Amino acid sequence: MAKRVFTFKRGAAERPADAAEALGLKGANLAMLASLDLPVPPGFTVSTTGWRETATVNGALSQSLRSEILSGVEWLEAATGRAFDGKARPLLLAVRTGARSQMPGLADTVLDIGLNDRTVEIFAEELGDPHFAFRSYRRFIESFATLVHGADPGEFEELMDAERVHNGWRGPEPDTLDGWRSLIAGHLRLVEDVAGEAMPQTPFEQLVAVVGGAFASWRSPVARAFRVLHGIAENAGLAVTAHAMIFNERGENSGTGRAVSRDLSTGRAQLTGEFILRGRDEPREIGERGTVIDLAAMGPTSASPFPADREALADHVRRVEEHLGDACEVDFMVGDGELFILQSRPARRGVDEAIHVAVRMVEEGLIAEEEALLRIDPASLDQLLHPTIERGEAFDLIARGVPASPGAASGQIVFSAQAALDLANEGRRTILVRTETLPDDIHGMHVTEGVLTIRGGTTSHAAVVARGIGKPCVTGAGSLRIDQDAGTLTASGRVLREGDVITIDGTSGEIIAGASRLTRPMLTGDFAILLEFADRARRLHVRTNAETPLEARAARAFGAEGIGLCRTEHMFFQGERVGAMREMILAEGEDGRRAALARLLPMQRSDFVELFEIMAGQPVTIRLLDPPLHEFLPKGEAEIAETAAHLGVPERKLIERIETLREFNPMLGHRGCRLAISYPEIVETQARAIFEAAIEAGQKKGKDVVPEIMIPLISLRKELDFVKARIDDIAERVAQERGRRVSYLVGAMMELPRAILRADLIAQVADFCSFGTNDLTQTVYGISRDDSSNFLSTYERLGIIDRDPFQSIDVEGVGELVTLGVEKARRVRPDITLGVCGEQGGDPASINFFEKAGLDYVSCSPYRVPIARLAAAQAAIRFERSLRGAGASKARGRA
Amino acid sequence: MAKRVFTFKRGAAERPADAAEALGLKGANLAMLASLDLPVPPGFTVSTTGWRETATVNGALSQSLRSEILSGVEWLEAATGRAFDGKARPLLLAVRTGARSQMPGLADTVLDIGLNDRTVEIFAEELGDPHFAFRSYRRFIESFATLVHGADPGEFEELMDAERVHNGWRGPEPDTLDGWRSLIAGHLRLVEDVAGEAMPQTPFEQLVAVVGGAFASWRSPVARAFRVLHGIAENAGLAVTAHAMIFNERGENSGTGRAVSRDLSTGRAQLTGEFILRGRDEPREIGERGTVIDLAAMGPTSASPFPADREALADHVRRVEEHLGDACEVDFMVGDGELFILQSRPARRGVDEAIHVAVRMVEEGLIAEEEALLRIDPASLDQLLHPTIERGEAFDLIARGVPASPGAASGQIVFSAQAALDLANEGRRTILVRTETLPDDIHGMHVTEGVLTIRGGTTSHAAVVARGIGKPCVTGAGSLRIDQDAGTLTASGRVLREGDVITIDGTSGEIIAGASRLTRPMLTGDFAILLEFADRARRLHVRTNAETPLEARAARAFGAEGIGLCRTEHMFFQGERVGAMREMILAEGEDGRRAALARLLPMQRSDFVELFEIMAGQPVTIRLLDPPLHEFLPKGEAEIAETAAHLGVPERKLIERIETLREFNPMLGHRGCRLAISYPEIVETQARAIFEAAIEAGQKKGKDVVPEIMIPLISLRKELDFVKARIDDIAERVAQERGRRVSYLVGAMMELPRAILRADLIAQVADFCSFGTNDLTQTVYGISRDDSSNFLSTYERLGIIDRDPFQSIDVEGVGELVTLGVEKARRVRPDITLGVCGEQGGDPASINFFEKAGLDYVSCSPYRVPIARLAAAQAAIRFERSLRGAGASKARGRA
Repeated sequence: MAKRVFTFKRGAAERPADAAEALGLKGANLAMLASLDLPVPPGFTVSTTGWRETATVNGALSQSLRSEILSGVEWLEAATGRAFDGKARPLLLAVRTGARSQMPGLADTVLDIGLNDRTVEIFAEELGDPHFAFRSYRRFIESFATLVHGADPGEFEELMDAERVHNGWRGPEPDTLDGWRSLIAGHLRLVEDVAGEAMPQTPFEQLVAVVGGAFASWRSPVARAFRVLHGIAENAGLAVTAHAMIFNERGENSGTGRAVSRDLSTGRAQLTGEFILRGRDEPREIGERGTVIDLAAMGPTSASPFPADREALADHVRRVEEHLGDACEVDFMVGDGELFILQSRPARRGVDEAIHVAVRMVEEGLIAEEEALLRIDPASLDQLLHPTIERGEAFDLIARGVPASPGAASGQIVFSAQAALDLANEGRRTILVRTETLPDDIHGMHVTEGVLTIRGGTTSHAAVVARGIGKPCVTGAGSLRIDQDAGTLTASGRVLREGDVITIDGTSGEIIAGASRLTRPMLTGDFAILLEFADRARRLHVRTNAETPLEARAARAFGAEGIGLCRTEHMFFQGERVGAMREMILAEGEDGRRAALARLLPMQRSDFVELFEIMAGQPVTIRLLDPPLHEFLPKGEAEIAETAAHLGVPERKLIERIETLREFNPMLGHRGCRLAISYPEIVETQARAIFEAAIEAGQKKGKDVVPEIMIPLISLRKELDFVKARIDDIAERVAQERGRRVSYLVGAMMELPRAILRADLIAQVADFCSFGTNDLTQTVYGISRDDSSNFLSTYERLGIIDRDPFQSIDVEGVGELVTLGVEKARRVRPDITLGVCGEQGGDPASINFFEKAGLDYVSCSPYRVPIARLAAAQAAIRFERSLRGAGASKARGRA
Repeated sequence: MAKRVFTFKRGAAERPADAAEALGLKGANLAMLASLDLPVPPGFTVSTTGWRETATVNGALSQSLRSEILSGVEWLEAATGRAFDGKARPLLLAVRTGARSQMPGLADTVLDIGLNDRTVEIFAEELGDPHFAFRSYRRFIESFATLVHGADPGEFEELMDAERVHNGWRGPEPDTLDGWRSLIAGHLRLVEDVAGEAMPQTPFEQLVAVVGGAFASWRSPVARAFRVLHGIAENAGLAVTAHAMIFNERGENSGTGRAVSRDLSTGRAQLTGEFILRGRDEPREIGERGTVIDLAAMGPTSASPFPADREALADHVRRVEEHLGDACEVDFMVGDGELFILQSRPARRGVDEAIHVAVRMVEEGLIAEEEALLRIDPASLDQLLHPTIERGEAFDLIARGVPASPGAASGQIVFSAQAALDLANEGRRTILVRTETLPDDIHGMHVTEGVLTIRGGTTSHAAVVARGIGKPCVTGAGSLRIDQDAGTLTASGRVLREGDVITIDGTSGEIIAGASRLTRPMLTGDFAILLEFADRARRLHVRTNAETPLEARAARAFGAEGIGLCRTEHMFFQGERVGAMREMILAEGEDGRRAALARLLPMQRSDFVELFEIMAGQPVTIRLLDPPLHEFLPKGEAEIAETAAHLGVPERKLIERIETLREFNPMLGHRGCRLAISYPEIVETQARAIFEAAIEAGQKKGKDVVPEIMIPLISLRKELDFVKARIDDIAERVAQERGRRVSYLVGAMMELPRAILRADLIAQVADFCSFGTNDLTQTVYGISRDDSSNFLSTYERLGIIDRDPFQSIDVEGVGELVTLGVEKARRVRPDITLGVCGEQGGDPASINFFEKAGLDYVSCSPYRVPIARLAAAQAAIRFERSLRGAGASKARGRA
C-alpha cells in the first residue's frame, strides 16, 4: 500500500515524488524547509492519497490509515521527547490543511490538539501559566466543535457571556482556575449537545477526528464553487499536516514574524520584514496588535529586542532565496527564544518592486536576464505608465463602468468636445462625458484629461482613441444618464452639473465625485534596464500607432522602433481642416474635390514633415484615408445649420448629401481603399503630401526618408494594383517636379478575410502587409465592436468565450487565418515584411501568438510600447524554449 | 514557306489544321461546306498568315503573296471556265473579310472585282442587261475607293446628284448607256482625285488592292476597341476570302434566302426559313424588299415560285445539321436558277425554341440527354418563368433602375405596405414604391404585384425578398423621388400620384408610365422533359428557400426536393404577430417575454404544420429567429405613437427601448444565435412549435416528420452546444408531454468566416451545415450588401471585379473558404450533410462551383428551382467530364 504519512523535522523530511500534489502546498513547503536544514517544528503530513481513500469510503478513516497516523505520532513523540496524553511534558499538535492550489473554504488551523481535562493541568504546571493553558484548551474545544461537528462559534460566545454574568468575571476571561474549569465543563457539555456524543478526551481520537473534519472540508460549498470556477479537478484532494505546537503567544521571548530576503524598494539583498512580540500563531494579522519590530532597522550589531538569533534568521532566509532562486518571504515564530520557520514563498511585490528584484538578481549573477524577463507580468507595467488614485483615503464612488483605457484623471465635467476645448483654452482640466464618442470628438479628447462614456466597451471608439493617446477612459457606465439640455449627469438619483469635478479611474472603471489624489509613478532606472534586457531577447520589432507629434515623441521615449500605423483621418478633424474635408465631400465633381484637397495638401504635408523629423529615419507607415466620408459631416440640426452657413451651401443640399452617404453598416461600407478607388484624387493628394514631406524632411535632416504607404481595407489584388498605380504616378510626377526621387514602400492592410485568403496574390504586389486585427476580428467573427458589449458580456458569463476577442487575439479563429495569411504571403515572397497594427499589437497574449506566427513587428499605442517590448521578449524566450523542447524530444524520438 | 492561299469548290477544299484560326470564320465555314459537297461558289481564302506577313512589312503585299494569290486566281479561272480581264465571260469576284471571332469594324464585302471599262461592256453583253452591268461597276468603284482609299461615300452621292441634274435623269439612275459611261468616268476621276492615282483597270491589281485594304481594316479604331474590350489578341489577324460572283440580284430566277433545319416552335426536323426573290447579295437585310417566300409553307409537291430545287436545299441543310449535330441555319443564294450555299451556323433561337430542338434531337437519337442539357443556358430559363412586357408597342419610359427580380408587373402606385394591403383587399393591383424596404414591408410585398425602390441594388432587402416570393422588383431607381406627404412620385420633373398606374420590368430595370401588355409564357411539355433529363444527370439536390405555403407549393411545382431555408422571422411580421413580438421585446424580464412568446407559439405551430403537410415528408430546414430585435420595432413618430398606444406602454419607454437596441452595424450585431443565447426562451418557444407541429402533421399524414433545425450566425462550437442543449431539452419535454418522440436534426448555418475556419469543431456537434453565402460574402469581403451598390458599380466599371460577388460566388475568396470548410467538416464527419442556402443557390455559375466543392444540396428561391435543376445537371456533367479528362490525361501520363 502506498505510503500516506510523511514525517519531517529539521534536516530530514520524507518527500514523495510530486510533493505539492501529495502533501499540499503547506506540507510540501514544510518538508522542503526541513530538508534545507531550517528549524521547522517536527511533524508529519497525511497525504492526498489518504484523503482520496477516505473520501471513497464515506469519510471514515480506515484502520490502516489510523495506524499509519499513529506511527507518525509515535515518531513525533520520539522527535520531541514528549508524549501524546503524557503524564509529563504532554505533546500538543497544530493541524493545518492544504491543497495543491490555494483555495478558500478548507479547514482552518486547529491548535493544541492533545489537551484534555488531565493534560491541561500538567501543561499548566509545566508552563507555570495555568491561565494560558486553560485559554488554549478552551480555544481548542471551540475549534474542534466547529470543524468536526459544524458547531456555531456564536453559541460558545453566548456561553462565555452567560458564565461571565453568572460568575461575575472582572475581565473577558475567568478570574480563577475554578472559573476556567467551570467554563471548560460548559464547553464540553455544549459539544456533547451539538454532536450527540462527548468530545474525545483521548488525544489520538481528537487528532483522528480533526483529520477527518479537515478532509471533509474539501466538499464545503465555497471550496467546490472555487474549484468549478478555476477548473480544479474534484478529485485533486487535500493533505493535512500535524506538527508540534510552538508557544509563540506566551512571554516576552515569543512572537510571530514575516521576513523578506530583500529590500523590495531597491531590490538589494537585505533582511527586511517585521516581527511582532507575543503575536498570535496565525501570522496573517500582522499589524493588528503586539509590538512591531522592523527587521531591517535592526542592525546586526545593535542591541535589539528581537528575542532570537537575527543572524540565524537572516541566514535561513538567504538559504530559502537561494533555493527558490527568487526573493522570498518567510513566516517564522519565536517560542520562548527559540526560532521556528513555518512557511516560505516568493516575496509578494508590486510591479516596481519586482523589477528592482529581478534587475538586482541579474546584477548579482543569481539569475539570467531571460529569467528576470519572465518574472515580470507585462500587463502589470501598465501601473507604472499611468497615474493612479492614491488608495487609503475614502472616496465618493458614484458609479462603475468598463475600464477602457488605464490611468486616473480628475477634471470638470464637460458634455461636448467644444466645451473641453473652451475650458482647455482657459487652462482648466476637464473630463469629457459623452453617451458615445465619434471621430469629431477627437479634438476634444486630445485636450481633456479623461473620457467617460455611457455606452461602449473596451473597443468602442472612445476606448480605442483614448488608449491611443494615453488618456484614461471609462466606457459603458450604463447607470449614468446625460441630460444635455439641463447640463446634468445623473448617477442613480444623484445629480452632477456641467463644471462639477469628477475623477475617473480607467484601470478600475470607478467614477468618483470630486478630485481624488493621484500619483504618477516615476520610471526608475531598473525599469529601463529591464527593457534593455527585453530588447536583447526579443525578435519582434515594436512600432507604435501614432499620428500626432505628441504621440510620436511619447512612443520614441518608450522605445518604439518606428510608426506602424499613422491614421491620416485624425488629421482631418482638427480645426479648419474638417471644413476643407466637408467642402470636398460636398463638391459637385472631381474638380471641386481637387480644389478642396489642394487646401488640405500643405497641412497634411507639414504633419508628415514633423512626424518624419521626430522619427528620425525610423520607419513611418502612413495609412491612407480610411473612414467613410459621412463621419466627417456634421450631426444634429444645429451643427448642420452652422456648417451649411459656414460653407455657403443650402442646408437642404447638405442634408441631402448626408442622407445619400448614410450607411446601414458603415463598418462594411464605402471606406478604406474603396474611397481611393471612387475618388482617386484623395489618394493622389495624400501621396503627394507624403512624397513632398519626405523630400523636405530628408533635406532638413540630411538623410533620406523612406515612407511606407499602407492601403486600408484591401480585399482584392486589383484594388492594390489600382491604388498603387496612382501612388507610383504621383511619385514620378513629384520626382519630375522636384528633381529628387523618393524611395518608398506600398503595402496592404490585411483586415478582411478575403485579403488573407488571397495573401499570395497580394504579396505579389505589396512590399509589406500589416494585419489589422480589430477589423479582422469584426469580420471573422461577424461582430461589430461598437455593438458587441451587449451580448459578449453574456457570452463571458456563460463561459461561451473566455475573454473579449478584441482585447486578446482569438487564436483558434482569427489566429488561424493570420497563420494562413503569413504562410501564403511568405510562399510568394519569403522576405516580405509582415506586421500587426491592431489594438492587439500591445496585448501580451496576442504578442505571444504573433511571435509564433512569425510576424516581423507589432505596432501598438505609445503607452503600451514598453509592455510590448517585454511581452515580445517573453514570447521569443518561450518560443525558443518550446523549439528546444520539441527539438530535444525529437532527438529522443530519433535515438 | 507556309501556304497562305487555300482554294475551295464543291466537293474539295484545302483546309489547314486550325481552319477557323487560319481562314477566319467565313473562310473556314465555306471550306467546310465545300468539303460536305455542297454547292458553294468556288474561291480561295488568303489566310491570317498572309495578313501577319503583310502587317509586319507596313501593309504592302509581298511579291510571293501576290504570286500565291495569282495562282489562286488561275485556279479559279480553271474552276469557273472564266478569265479575269477575259475577252469573253470575264471572271468577277466577291471579297469577304473575316476573323477568328465576330468583330465589328472590319472591311465590308466588295463585289464585282474584275469589272473595268472594258469588261463591263463584255459583261453587259453577256447578260443582255447593260444597266445591271454598269450599276455593278459603279457600286464596285465606290466600294473600292471607300475601302482602299478611305473615300467618303457622300462624295459619290454628290457626284450622282450633279450628274442627275446635269443630264436630266428621269429616275435614280442614268437613262442611257452614255449616261452610265459619263457617270463611270466621273467616278474614276473622283477616285483619282482622292487617291492621287488612277484606279487600277487591271482586275488582278484591283484584287490585290482590295485584299490590302481588307488587311488594313484590322487596325480600324472600332475593331481595336472591340479587341481591347473582349481580350482578343492584337496579332490574331484576319483572313480574306475571294469567290466567284453569284448574280442573285438579277431576274425572276434569282434571290437570297436563309433556311433553317427545323421548325423551332416545335423542334421538329423540317425545312423552314425564307427566300426573297431578287434579294441583294448581303443576306442581312431580309424582309426589307423583294417577294418573300416561306420555305416551310412550300410543300414538296406544290407548284412553287421557288426558282431552284427545294428538295436539294432541304437535303443540303440536313447535311449541315448532321455535320454540326445541332439545328442550323444556312444562308443561300439562287443565281438564275442555280443554288449556292454561302454560309451556315447553328440556328439562332429563343430559350423555348432551344428546348424544343434539344428535346426533339434526343428523341430522334441525334444527341444524348447530356448534350441536350448542355445546350440550354440555365439563366435563360428565367424568361419562361416570369411575365414579360410585350415589345413592339411604344411605351412611355420614365426611368430606369437596377433589374433586381425578374418579370414585369403593372399596378397602382402605393407608398406603404398598408396601402398595398388596403387596395389588395379591394381586389386592386398595386406596385409598392419605397425609398427602401424593411422587414415590416414584407406583408405588403406579398400582396403587391411588384416592388420599386429608390435605393439598393440586386441584393438589397427588396431584391432578396422579391426574388424569394417571385415578384418583379426594380431597385436603385435613383432618378425618382418620393414625396410621402404630397403622395407623389417625381421622375425627372414628371409627377405621378399615388393611385396612378405604372409598369415595372424587373428583367430590364425599366419603369413605364401606364399599364403595358404582359405575357406569361406557358411551361411546355418539352421544358418538363428537359428537367427530367436534368434530374437524371445531376448529383446535387435542389431545395427551396420558402416560408409561406404559397412559396412552398410553387417550389414543389417547380420540382424542389425540400425546404433548405425557412426563415422564421418573416412569420413574425404578419398582422397581430408583430404586436406580440413587440410586446416580447419590450417586456421587463424573462417572464414577460415568455408570456408574449406563449401567444406566438400556436401561430408558429400552425405555420409549421402547414409547411410540413405541403412538403409531405421532404426535408424542411427551419432557421431560428435571425434578425436583430430592433427590426421588429416601429419606425417614425406616427408608428411609434400608434404602437405605444396599442401596447399600452408610455411612448417615452418605447423610444428608450428603440434607442437602446439601436446598432451601428446591425449586420454584425445582436442577431442570429446571439439572440438565442441572450434570450433562450425564444429558441425554446420556436423548438416547441416545431416539435408540436411535427407531431401534429405526422399524425395527420400518418408519416413521421423529421424537422431540421438550423441555428444562424454560428461562430463558435460552444454557441451551438448552448442552443442545441435548449432544443434537446424541449424535445425531451415535448416527448414527455405528448408521449411521442420526434426525430430531428440540428445544424449550423455557416455564414461567418470563424465558423468555417473551425468547421471541424462545429461538425462534431452539427448534424448538417448550410453555407449562407450572402452573409459570408459580406464578412469575407467586408462589404455590406445594403451599402455596396455605390462602390461596386465603380469596381465593375474599372474592371476590378468581373461581377457582383453577391450574385455569383467569388470563387477565389469566398469559394476558397467554403472549400476549406467542406474539407474540415468532412474530415471530422464524412457523412455530414452540407448545403448552401444563400441567393447563390440559384445561380448557375455558383452551382457549378458548389458541385466541385462537393456540397449535397443547393437551396434557392422557388422561381429559380428549375434553373438550379438544370445548372446542377450541367455542373455534374462538366465535373464528370473534367474528371474523365484528367483521368485520361493521367492515363496517358502513365503510359
